[in-house]
Amino acid sequence: MLMKANSQTLAEQLAAHFADRIRNYLLAGGARLPSVRQCAEQHQVSPSTVVAAYDRLLAQGLVEARKNRGFFVREVASAQDHSARGAIDSRAEAAPLIHPPINAAALMRGMFHGMSSKPHPGVGVFPADWLANSFMPAAVRRIAAGKAEFSLQYGEPAGDLGLRQTLSKKLVGLNIHAAPEHIITTVGATHALDVVSRSLLRAGDYVMVEEPGWAVEFARLDALGMRILPVPRRADGPDLAVMARYCELHKPKLFVSVSVFHNPTGYCLTPGSAHRVLTLANQHDFHIVEDDTYAHLAPEHATRLCVLDGLQRTIYASGFSKILAPGWRIGYLAAPPALVERLLDTKLVATLSTPALLEKALAWCIDQGQLRRHAERVRVRLDQARTRSVKLAVAAGCSFAAEPAGLFGWVETGVDTDALGQRLLDEGHLIAPGALFHAQRRPSTLMRINFATTQEPGFWKVFERVRRGM
Amino acid sequence: MLMKANSQTLAEQLAAHFADRIRNYLLAGGARLPSVRQCAEQHQVSPSTVVAAYDRLLAQGLVEARKNRGFFVREVASAQDHSARGAIDSRAEAAPLIHPPINAAALMRGMFHGMSSKPHPGVGVFPADWLANSFMPAAVRRIAAGKAEFSLQYGEPAGDLGLRQTLSKKLVGLNIHAAPEHIITTVGATHALDVVSRSLLRAGDYVMVEEPGWAVEFARLDALGMRILPVPRRADGPDLAVMARYCELHKPKLFVSVSVFHNPTGYCLTPGSAHRVLTLANQHDFHIVEDDTYAHLAPEHATRLCVLDGLQRTIYASGFSKILAPGWRIGYLAAPPALVERLLDTKLVATLSTPALLEKALAWCIDQGQLRRHAERVRVRLDQARTRSVKLAVAAGCSFAAEPAGLFGWVETGVDTDALGQRLLDEGHLIAPGALFHAQRRPSTLMRINFATTQEPGFWKVFERVRRGM
Repeated sequence: MLMKANSQTLAEQLAAHFADRIRNYLLAGGARLPSVRQCAEQHQVSPSTVVAAYDRLLAQGLVEARKNRGFFVREVASAQDHSARGAIDSRAEAAPLIHPPINAAALMRGMFHGMSSKPHPGVGVFPADWLANSFMPAAVRRIAAGKAEFSLQYGEPAGDLGLRQTLSKKLVGLNIHAAPEHIITTVGATHALDVVSRSLLRAGDYVMVEEPGWAVEFARLDALGMRILPVPRRADGPDLAVMARYCELHKPKLFVSVSVFHNPTGYCLTPGSAHRVLTLANQHDFHIVEDDTYAHLAPEHATRLCVLDGLQRTIYASGFSKILAPGWRIGYLAAPPALVERLLDTKLVATLSTPALLEKALAWCIDQGQLRRHAERVRVRLDQARTRSVKLAVAAGCSFAAEPAGLFGWVETGVDTDALGQRLLDEGHLIAPGALFHAQRRPSTLMRINFATTQEPGFWKVFERVRRGM
Repeated sequence: MLMKANSQTLAEQLAAHFADRIRNYLLAGGARLPSVRQCAEQHQVSPSTVVAAYDRLLAQGLVEARKNRGFFVREVASAQDHSARGAIDSRAEAAPLIHPPINAAALMRGMFHGMSSKPHPGVGVFPADWLANSFMPAAVRRIAAGKAEFSLQYGEPAGDLGLRQTLSKKLVGLNIHAAPEHIITTVGATHALDVVSRSLLRAGDYVMVEEPGWAVEFARLDALGMRILPVPRRADGPDLAVMARYCELHKPKLFVSVSVFHNPTGYCLTPGSAHRVLTLANQHDFHIVEDDTYAHLAPEHATRLCVLDGLQRTIYASGFSKILAPGWRIGYLAAPPALVERLLDTKLVATLSTPALLEKALAWCIDQGQLRRHAERVRVRLDQARTRSVKLAVAAGCSFAAEPAGLFGWVETGVDTDALGQRLLDEGHLIAPGALFHAQRRPSTLMRINFATTQEPGFWKVFERVRRGM
């Protein structure tokens, strides 16, 4: 809220407002500032005040003016030296070069920043009170009850054997047959995907990734110097015609896919589509990493590539951040026997090993049936929340671009969600604009909502008011 | 021990003995098997039995015969596609291309494998009983006493704020001034070095690394596609003439250095050498990552590059695996303000965040003074062990290639330590042969010993007997 009595001028206050948001990655590099007229209206100041504020931001190097197009947030210089990248690019024949918004990772960090206590439709996890339980701290205390001597060594490179045995048994329930020695624990599913990328790809390699998809995946592959080939994700699975064309042209080495409750659409892969993806993988000899982050929210019989494939060329990656404890940072992968050693070497050079204490505590939670019962409760609660949330969204004039399922809704708002996001942030709500889910930043009228945080009318009232004002 | 009464022939048993060791990475790719005569003598079988055993290994593809030179363990195919690497190499002018033994990482894993209960001079950590304490499990129980709600969120990307504040204060004792917001926690010091490599380098970049040096560092840089420039490490610091020449020829981007209690020599950097390294870094504009893994074993006033530099172009990396709990996997880095965002982005795409529970427990151990008192006890015990160990080594006919200091001794044995290592493994002792500390595998008569595990006469008696037999 701008105030005349403040020791700063209105223009200074307005500039500080935008500067703060840019510095905290809540206004992304490449995003357009509101027009002078819009901004004046929204903040109830004169257009000349807005011009003065934008001039300050220009002088601070935070924004840039583009002729006849307005003011844009400057892209932050990234770790990537684009001239060096150019040198690699020149080696390749006509290749589509896709660089995700340089600061996609930085943008994600915006999501961690101190936020208001209002519901945040944009977050990717359940609210803490959904996950709260007494068995997790109890498990930790139990494991740390003795001398916890296992903490005095690095532990097994592949991860705690007890946990890997437990995971091996648990996977049988999904029809995935992986021996404990073919399972590797990681620092969350994110690290599992990181280990796979680093083991199977080299800078300059082509990799197919579903789009829309998860910003961190795009950002990681770009940071590693990979060439991203975005594959449109449809309701039944990835667009096979596009994949086939990529295979002919670029010989990609890897396909990154979320089969079950795809993020952000909630789509689930059909058996027919799975079969065709695997046939293509066999024909063109690429690996697949199947990101099963939402496994615990899905029915056990959901179609998974690695079940059809029998872990031949598919690597399974999952974790416990969505259902138990994001803060424990436990994920894992199950790999074809021929790849295990390579993946283990990558884990070793990156982190040596992972904390046995938390892995033992997790094994206990699973073995005691605590995880299963907890997951059942969360699924029931999510189903109820989704029903309420969908009704409210539709009543607020939205439609769903994908049949609502799982944790996320992929919502058509009818307005630019980058701009909408800025307005809603002024009201204390963080949303996930559609631009975040594309390999290359582009305006979108879609947004991803978390059904667990959008089941109350409060947010939707604000949403309707703000959208009407745009 | 080969046995005639066994259901397998002697040749089968002998082949199985070698096959097992190769598969467990205790016999490295590229290593030479004993000559037929030596092997026959050592295992008390006929030369024809050895020939039959080696033939089996050949047939299994585990070894290869090199004309007039004998049998060598086959290099395992690695994740690195050397033809792809060739494509990058062709862009560079006359560059020394150094590939560490492909399976250096795998070889290190040999060190984790189920070992006998005898003392292992080759391990890099203190024996568990040196680190055993009651305050660490107590800290965990304390932190997990409530609902431990912090585990229900991802936590801060940079790491638990409480721990970062504690580390910031602790670093003042070393004369390092880093605000909590310039500190990032990691999965052990290994991960800190990994984050730095990934943030500051791109595939094909040149990086200077001290040699001898730590195998995992060489293996990681190679896996990331970097070009390693080995810098001889002298008693006073790195060889500056070599560094200057590298700078002229290859414009390296980074120098990886262990200033205090260098691994494996135990050397400490002198102030004059530190000044000259920093002058060179300023002239040629490269960054330095200072690996201070052994910080807790050293006096506080030891010379560190980042103290002289004031964290301008030096990144400080350290951790708690050597002094407290390898299994907690907590490390951290303190970085120049201009680099923090880039490093944080890399941590985020690799692991999102790190486990807050263990970070909070560690902060408690430090804040309560437990770590300080514990480190004092360990230092006193290590000084005593070193005195005993040095005496025994000298009595066993060894000399020290570097003045004994810190945790490790760099010992001249007078015989090939790869071969010595195999013989000692037969007796249940794991040693760290000199070849492990070079960027390119080459025979060495040096070995690294851990003073904490070589202070008893038992090992040295076996050592003397085995060495006499070579």
